[in-house]
Amino acid sequence: MARVAGLDVLDVRFPTSRELDGSDAMNPDPDYSAAYVVLRADRGPDGYGLAFTIGRGNDVQAAAIRALAPLVVGRPVPETARDLAALYRDLVGDSQLRWLGPEKGVAHMALGAVVNAAWDLAARRAGLPVWRFLSALTPDEVVDLVDFRYLSDALTPDEALALLREAEPGKGERTAALVRDGYPAYATSPGWLGYSDDKMAELARRAVADGFDMIKLKVGGSLADDVRRLRLAREVVGPDVRIAVDANQRWDVGAAVAWVRELAPFDPYWVEEPTSPDDVLGHRAIARAVRPVKVATGEHVQNRVVFKQLLQADAVDVVQIDACRVGGVNENVAILLLAAKFGVPVCPHAGGVGLCELVRHLAMFDFVAVSGTTEDRAVEWVDHLHEHFTDPAEVRAGRYRAPTEPGFSARVKDRTLADFRYPDGPVWTNLEAR
Amino acid sequence: MARVAGLDVLDVRFPTSRELDGSDAMNPDPDYSAAYVVLRADRGPDGYGLAFTIGRGNDVQAAAIRALAPLVVGRPVPETARDLAALYRDLVGDSQLRWLGPEKGVAHMALGAVVNAAWDLAARRAGLPVWRFLSALTPDEVVDLVDFRYLSDALTPDEALALLREAEPGKGERTAALVRDGYPAYATSPGWLGYSDDKMAELARRAVADGFDMIKLKVGGSLADDVRRLRLAREVVGPDVRIAVDANQRWDVGAAVAWVRELAPFDPYWVEEPTSPDDVLGHRAIARAVRPVKVATGEHVQNRVVFKQLLQADAVDVVQIDACRVGGVNENVAILLLAAKFGVPVCPHAGGVGLCELVRHLAMFDFVAVSGTTEDRAVEWVDHLHEHFTDPAEVRAGRYRAPTEPGFSARVKDRTLADFRYPDGPVWTNLEAR
Repeated sequence: MARVAGLDVLDVRFPTSRELDGSDAMNPDPDYSAAYVVLRADRGPDGYGLAFTIGRGNDVQAAAIRALAPLVVGRPVPETARDLAALYRDLVGDSQLRWLGPEKGVAHMALGAVVNAAWDLAARRAGLPVWRFLSALTPDEVVDLVDFRYLSDALTPDEALALLREAEPGKGERTAALVRDGYPAYATSPGWLGYSDDKMAELARRAVADGFDMIKLKVGGSLADDVRRLRLAREVVGPDVRIAVDANQRWDVGAAVAWVRELAPFDPYWVEEPTSPDDVLGHRAIARAVRPVKVATGEHVQNRVVFKQLLQADAVDVVQIDACRVGGVNENVAILLLAAKFGVPVCPHAGGVGLCELVRHLAMFDFVAVSGTTEDRAVEWVDHLHEHFTDPAEVRAGRYRAPTEPGFSARVKDRTLADFRYPDGPVWTNLEAR
Repeated sequence: MARVAGLDVLDVRFPTSRELDGSDAMNPDPDYSAAYVVLRADRGPDGYGLAFTIGRGNDVQAAAIRALAPLVVGRPVPETARDLAALYRDLVGDSQLRWLGPEKGVAHMALGAVVNAAWDLAARRAGLPVWRFLSALTPDEVVDLVDFRYLSDALTPDEALALLREAEPGKGERTAALVRDGYPAYATSPGWLGYSDDKMAELARRAVADGFDMIKLKVGGSLADDVRRLRLAREVVGPDVRIAVDANQRWDVGAAVAWVRELAPFDPYWVEEPTSPDDVLGHRAIARAVRPVKVATGEHVQNRVVFKQLLQADAVDVVQIDACRVGGVNENVAILLLAAKFGVPVCPHAGGVGLCELVRHLAMFDFVAVSGTTEDRAVEWVDHLHEHFTDPAEVRAGRYRAPTEPGFSARVKDRTLADFRYPDGPVWTNLEAR
């Protein structure tokens, strides 16, 4: 029996703030970073995972992952859904570490990184990409992945089982459709707040030419700028391309409503993160006031309990899961099931470092085995940093191609790890030396 | 002008799990711990603060505090409310570190520890205990301490100002009353889940004899045990002493309602942490179902945004602030103002390491300058680990004495720091050697 022989953590950072890639109303100068974890097996392939941060504090994130090593090292290498469920429960259940959350923030992202690395490892051993590994599970096995604690007032195991069974017919056809057509994507690359109007317009034009039918603009810095940029983008892309706007938590409830109303003439499709990700009631108030503009959130929603409430309160029209914010695949399966129960589409958050690579697997699993549809669904696409991954996400004609390599696509190239290691990799020492 | 010359962090742990002190339904074997911070000034007194954890992960908490050092070291030593507000805003506003929360979990507790150390430092320089330092501020100065972001749909600066002005008359009398009579306490020491019936009954009897008119029992392990223990406690203390029960997040919504109904014949005063601290809507559902039993929560409520919603939703009857979970004094002032706005009493969480020492200052400030009353209010009292502090909390006849030493009472004795340092202090190396 193979065992987990070690858990290594690397602090990897990219100096993205130099180009204003990723700039928005709350994050003016991010250095996209990963607290990267390698689960070393004593035989066979290793497993890879990461927590995404935007620079400072990536060392804290790495320390939080290291704190989980005693719970993982020495275990049998997880191979089955049951093994992965047991690992997730043991990590969530550590009563002393639980105090650091519970199930939120640094400690929870650390747990997610390790859980995802375990999924990567199990899928590699099975010779399957994670979306196929997940899609091949029975409804009972999927239900067993989920921690229903705090969910039963909204979703019971029996209800989840019924949802999954309902989605069984057509799994084969949907799998074939994914392989053939891929999964819808939308393009955020045009919309960073630090870009000039010209650059934004050119990138928007190119996105449409490349086959995207939805783009996203960052807003929330200045209303006058936002009106001008949204008007320009609408002129460039025409009336049939969806334009989402993303405020990155910039507003209070009243400000969000007032601001979105000023943007409404340009037909924004959704407003994303209008306020604090913790504010369920605030999102409800905003949603009621700005519909038919949809309200989307999720990249900073800390766990399934907050997603549950956003859905119970009818506070969101779009659920944005993130592969690396919550407790890994297991908790994201819970969130997909909650969204399906409430009939709300999931449009995953991506970008960052590796988020496109990982989350596409979850969207594809949702299509094959949970919601059974791609209608009004799309995964965010940001075209940077993919070259650092051994199994990079690929978008063609506005659609994510289905991954074919075994695992969760989380592995970073060795060369990148050497170059971008913080603070002592050559990219950083050279920047320091300038 | 004095400057902050350094920020030191120590990992201090107490082997409390050996005695089952602190054991409850979710935390069977805590080792009460502190990530302890010293803000060193280049002249004059230093400042002290801490984040409380229950063992594993205290090193992660310490790393998160260290990550804040570049934002603090080299600054002028904070002296005024304005300085302290500026420090808090700079720490909350770091856009890269914000990603680790935002404003929750490890990163936010770290911020709270540093903010509290800055308050300790400023109050020491002023020669005042923090409760007097705070109480001497004008309403405008108090309002300036608060970050109203995400609050304005529930509380505006003008409303906060009006509340504080309304509380101005009588501040002198209330201060004198505190000095004379102290502030009400309630006793949790009898109720740990790991204690035998006999030990619980004896401690409950002693608490009443010592002058407490309220005690608290941990529940949520087994219903039969809880019924037996609550019945016994009620017999021991009689009908006039309040008995709160604390489930430490053990239940889902339905289970909480069913369980509390079984305990209702023994007249529990409040049920504390019936479910996830993130579940605003869950608390509302429980509160509606179990009243007149009150619902209390807060020790794990991550920030002012969640407290805001608990109040907006009429989901809690008692607000339990914690000195070290949120963003320090500044955010706790926001929470006190929110509670006052909604007319909900604040009964602070304490215990742990140093929580009694710190939070009594905030309760006393609330009495003097915010709510103006102690009716249905009491600060938790757990009688252990106080001997490790240079200005220990003291309860006489069921009431906290008003602190008289300058500062926030957060300083740990040098001897304790040497003995309990983890993992290399002699207490731990001796345990290892056994």
